[in-house]
Amino acid sequence: MDLGTAILRPDSVALIGATDNPQRPGSRPQRFLKSAGYRGRVYLVNPSKPTVQGDPAYADLAELPETPDHAFILTSAERAVDALRSCGELGVPVATILDGGFADAGSDGEDRVAALREIVATTGIRLLGPNSIGVVNLHHAMPLTANSSFAERDRAPGTTFVASQSGSMIGALASKGGVLGASFSGFVSTGSEIDLTLGEICAATLDDDNVRDYLLFVENTRGSAQLRQFALQAYERGKPVVAYKLGRSEVGAELSQTHTGALAGDDALASQFLADSAIARVQTLDGLLEAGPLLHLLPVDHRKRLSVGLLTTTGGGAAMVVDELGVHGIDVVPPSAGTRERIRAAELPGTVSRIVDLTLAGTRREVMTKAVDIMSTAPEFDLVIVAVGSSARSDPDLVLAPIIEAAATTGDGRAAIAPLIVPEAPEALSMLHSAGVAAFHSAESLADVIVAAGRRRTPRPISPAPSYAKAPPLLNELDAYQVLDQYGIPRVASTPVTSAADYDGPFDPPVVAKALAADLPHKSDLGCVVLEIGSPAELDDAIASITSRCAAAGVELDGVIVQPMLESLGEVLLGLRNDPGMGQFVVLSAGGVLTEIYRDTAIRPVPVSRDSALEMISEVKAMKALGGYRGQAAGDLNALADTIVAFSTLATSAQPLDAEINPLLVRADGVVAVDAVIRMSTP
Amino acid sequence: MDLGTAILRPDSVALIGATDNPQRPGSRPQRFLKSAGYRGRVYLVNPSKPTVQGDPAYADLAELPETPDHAFILTSAERAVDALRSCGELGVPVATILDGGFADAGSDGEDRVAALREIVATTGIRLLGPNSIGVVNLHHAMPLTANSSFAERDRAPGTTFVASQSGSMIGALASKGGVLGASFSGFVSTGSEIDLTLGEICAATLDDDNVRDYLLFVENTRGSAQLRQFALQAYERGKPVVAYKLGRSEVGAELSQTHTGALAGDDALASQFLADSAIARVQTLDGLLEAGPLLHLLPVDHRKRLSVGLLTTTGGGAAMVVDELGVHGIDVVPPSAGTRERIRAAELPGTVSRIVDLTLAGTRREVMTKAVDIMSTAPEFDLVIVAVGSSARSDPDLVLAPIIEAAATTGDGRAAIAPLIVPEAPEALSMLHSAGVAAFHSAESLADVIVAAGRRRTPRPISPAPSYAKAPPLLNELDAYQVLDQYGIPRVASTPVTSAADYDGPFDPPVVAKALAADLPHKSDLGCVVLEIGSPAELDDAIASITSRCAAAGVELDGVIVQPMLESLGEVLLGLRNDPGMGQFVVLSAGGVLTEIYRDTAIRPVPVSRDSALEMISEVKAMKALGGYRGQAAGDLNALADTIVAFSTLATSAQPLDAEINPLLVRADGVVAVDAVIRMSTP
Repeated sequence: MDLGTAILRPDSVALIGATDNPQRPGSRPQRFLKSAGYRGRVYLVNPSKPTVQGDPAYADLAELPETPDHAFILTSAERAVDALRSCGELGVPVATILDGGFADAGSDGEDRVAALREIVATTGIRLLGPNSIGVVNLHHAMPLTANSSFAERDRAPGTTFVASQSGSMIGALASKGGVLGASFSGFVSTGSEIDLTLGEICAATLDDDNVRDYLLFVENTRGSAQLRQFALQAYERGKPVVAYKLGRSEVGAELSQTHTGALAGDDALASQFLADSAIARVQTLDGLLEAGPLLHLLPVDHRKRLSVGLLTTTGGGAAMVVDELGVHGIDVVPPSAGTRERIRAAELPGTVSRIVDLTLAGTRREVMTKAVDIMSTAPEFDLVIVAVGSSARSDPDLVLAPIIEAAATTGDGRAAIAPLIVPEAPEALSMLHSAGVAAFHSAESLADVIVAAGRRRTPRPISPAPSYAKAPPLLNELDAYQVLDQYGIPRVASTPVTSAADYDGPFDPPVVAKALAADLPHKSDLGCVVLEIGSPAELDDAIASITSRCAAAGVELDGVIVQPMLESLGEVLLGLRNDPGMGQFVVLSAGGVLTEIYRDTAIRPVPVSRDSALEMISEVKAMKALGGYRGQAAGDLNALADTIVAFSTLATSAQPLDAEINPLLVRADGVVAVDAVIRMSTP
Repeated sequence: MDLGTAILRPDSVALIGATDNPQRPGSRPQRFLKSAGYRGRVYLVNPSKPTVQGDPAYADLAELPETPDHAFILTSAERAVDALRSCGELGVPVATILDGGFADAGSDGEDRVAALREIVATTGIRLLGPNSIGVVNLHHAMPLTANSSFAERDRAPGTTFVASQSGSMIGALASKGGVLGASFSGFVSTGSEIDLTLGEICAATLDDDNVRDYLLFVENTRGSAQLRQFALQAYERGKPVVAYKLGRSEVGAELSQTHTGALAGDDALASQFLADSAIARVQTLDGLLEAGPLLHLLPVDHRKRLSVGLLTTTGGGAAMVVDELGVHGIDVVPPSAGTRERIRAAELPGTVSRIVDLTLAGTRREVMTKAVDIMSTAPEFDLVIVAVGSSARSDPDLVLAPIIEAAATTGDGRAAIAPLIVPEAPEALSMLHSAGVAAFHSAESLADVIVAAGRRRTPRPISPAPSYAKAPPLLNELDAYQVLDQYGIPRVASTPVTSAADYDGPFDPPVVAKALAADLPHKSDLGCVVLEIGSPAELDDAIASITSRCAAAGVELDGVIVQPMLESLGEVLLGLRNDPGMGQFVVLSAGGVLTEIYRDTAIRPVPVSRDSALEMISEVKAMKALGGYRGQAAGDLNALADTIVAFSTLATSAQPLDAEINPLLVRADGVVAVDAVIRMSTP
């Protein structure tokens, strides 16, 4: 039996730990299944009761007349382990565990988690949860869940599959989504994801024609590798995915050993990971629920700057949209001369400026029809927002019919149409939603979705991040330079010395002397870097000072190296971040003390193409100062782009655990690394 | 007759230009007034019809049996001028003009605006609009408006007065507010504000006991002086004000003559102006509509960091709140040891970490009662958020009664209580709203309001910005320094020279030579600043170069000045922005090229106290680098604060049109201005 069938379309389910106490959440699945009219067989298992809530129960799973397709284990955590083992031994394909007393329950909980893992590994049963509130398939009339929200029966089956790591949120999403026009095919709460993750479950639904798009509520990126695999397939099948992810307020680990960790926190990586998986990451719950239809209409191509036009019957409402989009860096585009001419020829009332404003006139059906037609066929727009005011409430038929008609004929060069209903107008929204139109109820939600959709990039397979049983030490600076040399990354000339006398070549002050040692990321903090050395005598002093300081700090010294002090137009940091699930990321950041204050960074999953490298450079604000800003000398940003690509190649090929060039000097002709930290086993 | 009565509680109204055509917006007020059961007298005026929509009409205003308290002019703009004149001559206290064909209608429109102004000035009539969609007083059953949304009659009178510069938005606010629990006393659309502004109209309602708080939809800050006056009085009477203001996406004028203008755009000033007026500026329309009750509970004191606790029955919902608040820089505070002990002693189910989580247990009434009581009486919290999950939908009585009870007993040290209803649960929200509880329907809206409330500052009267018939030229640098000297702002020693020979005192290289000239803000751009002068010969060269460059550029030279080149730990910009309505603002910004890239500024209305100056310093992120960050030398931030205060005194006392110190060097011992631009008539 395939996984999708067992999870979402089982012909028989066992409720292990079914209970007579209606106050207990574990009593709900039985009631919900009956009330929904689930057509499969439901087996109740309770060791001490012959009947549960009036239906006959079995004392033991082994007594069931057949092996159920799916078992929902409603017992306490203590008993759930044994229940899962019975299921596994009996050959039940999938079991879901409700109780949360595992990962959060101290050392007892840890033991139980280990037991669950062992059962999964040895019996081959697949486990949903623990701490999963269950699965709902509306097309199958199967609310196999303890979420109280599914006591309601009036939800028509739809096309969006919801996967949430939080159990309590599936109820909120179901109820809020109903009002915002989302239509759901089903829900799954994945809980602690000891075995099955959100990505794997979603992947198991990809062949389901009832599922046209996906809505994810993500608490963490535990199962990212599977999420990526799923996202790749969803993209290929044209099934868009939208995600709301917690953790936006996280900052990078302040105490990480490289600066890169502090500059690019896990959530920042997740943003790039999701964008690169063509998953639209929204910032609001309303945006999450309203995104689906518009994601079907907009291209997955972050390089295409979406050109947005605006037609309105409410001046104030339109101004709100323009402002909200503007806050997110998206300018509403005025109609072209040709479009203005067509508007003039059609003798439309109202005013045309950046927006086409039909206030007080737009309630006339023929006016709206002409206006929507002109705007949606205007070649300059990818997306036309139609902001509708009080007429959406007073005369929905009149004002919405033209929008619905035009939206239905979208295609061959026509712009996508997204109506925004400015007043509270549930009837209008419902009309639009029923017609499959990408309608929005707030400017905030609309802007959120447009921005999230526009960040999506064509997904690529990713190589996993390296994993080592034991992390090797950081290479010393000369060994790190050898690695850079292999990948063609320019770096400063560095000469090992024991005294000024053995310094090779002409002494060209000022120079720098540095301690050379493995596992020494922050040399400066220990006083192991001496700058501005002007004479051989000063160099000898510096060598002595570095040697004694390192000895005092217990640093095992490989030697001292001397480098010229190079001038530059600016400094950047180039770093690597590895995440076990999400993969490898290149981080570019402005250098210097203000870097960490402003956290002015760009992040991309590897491999980074040259185009992506140029994008990264344009995303880091401080790079403007290196681009010839206000008449200053321009840095060699082409060389910087080449080096970003080379650094990405280093990451994929050499698979270091850490890699950071800080600073990388940007000069008028080229870039040059003047320090590097790399952690890998063999240089 | 006082203004408030004439606008909002008229005993008689005239509808000038009343029309039989039901399609025309001008036909609506007559129908709405009748349908609402308005008890005053309604006089219809139409020169060509004896009856309008079945009611008798007068051909001329002069024929009316009495002078109406309020005239609503529904004619086209062309005729509205004459109608206003008739009203003014007849002694009508207030007239509202619907049509928008004035400010937006080219030179004809400008002529009409001038005519309106003249009528107002000569007859004493007060004018609302033009382009006002009217006024609604729900307590007076008076929908004197053409906004189609007021065809509905089911709005119960409430306590929030809505003033909007946009006419179409009052309908949207009315309908959306109804769903979000806002209860409105009335609405006004102020339109073009040729005479009456939003602030003056709101002020006219301050004595109305039906009005307990205010909701503003602001398109521009035209009438800011009156808004400030109103806000001061509203604050004194404990009537909170919330505002949504358009223009957030505006940036400063790039081409302004000083950098200050580019760094501090009008909208940034408006944010500070509103905060300083104790007006909570929200960023979302939902926040605007849900803010009222919570604003009554939270203190107007931006220096008090609000301590927020969180109790929840939905793990995922609570995580969303924590995250959304975190994005806005507000950390949810964990319960103290004492509170945890009380929770333990009460044997509450669920878990206690940063939040108190009753998931699956909170639906029991006694559990919720105890938990809410412990949290709201815990001394460590100012505000307790109670995030309620699906039980709000399935068992609203059970879970909400304890919240309503606890909210009713708020006072004497108890924390304010703000429930967040995570699922769609209109019944639950309605119960909470009816009980006057500060309930929210989304984490985004809740966070928006908490942040906006926390930014409010105790309002102070402000002195108006200076106004000149003709702007005087910029002072030359030495004259500007004389002004700084008067206010005790340290500046660099500057010696006027004609040649190196007449340079007074020992020559201590390196020095700087600069052109001295009035009206020369960007000396460097013309090559009129020569740095790093190392010898008297170089000085003579520099003087010659400056003289010839200025001659070539047509700059009238007052001479050349020489200054020592001072070292510093960092540079800042200190500037002044004047706005005719909002007053004067001091702008502090990080100096150097990255300043304009990051727009890292702090802005305060003058006068700036020393405490406020220290706040400004802490708001500018780059100042961290001057505060001894990562072991670097610390700049003298106390001296910087003193200088900000002195600069504010300069602004209030000398009333310059422009003033900018750029850069102001921050050194280990003190600060020093090394350039200054001031525009005022007498130094």
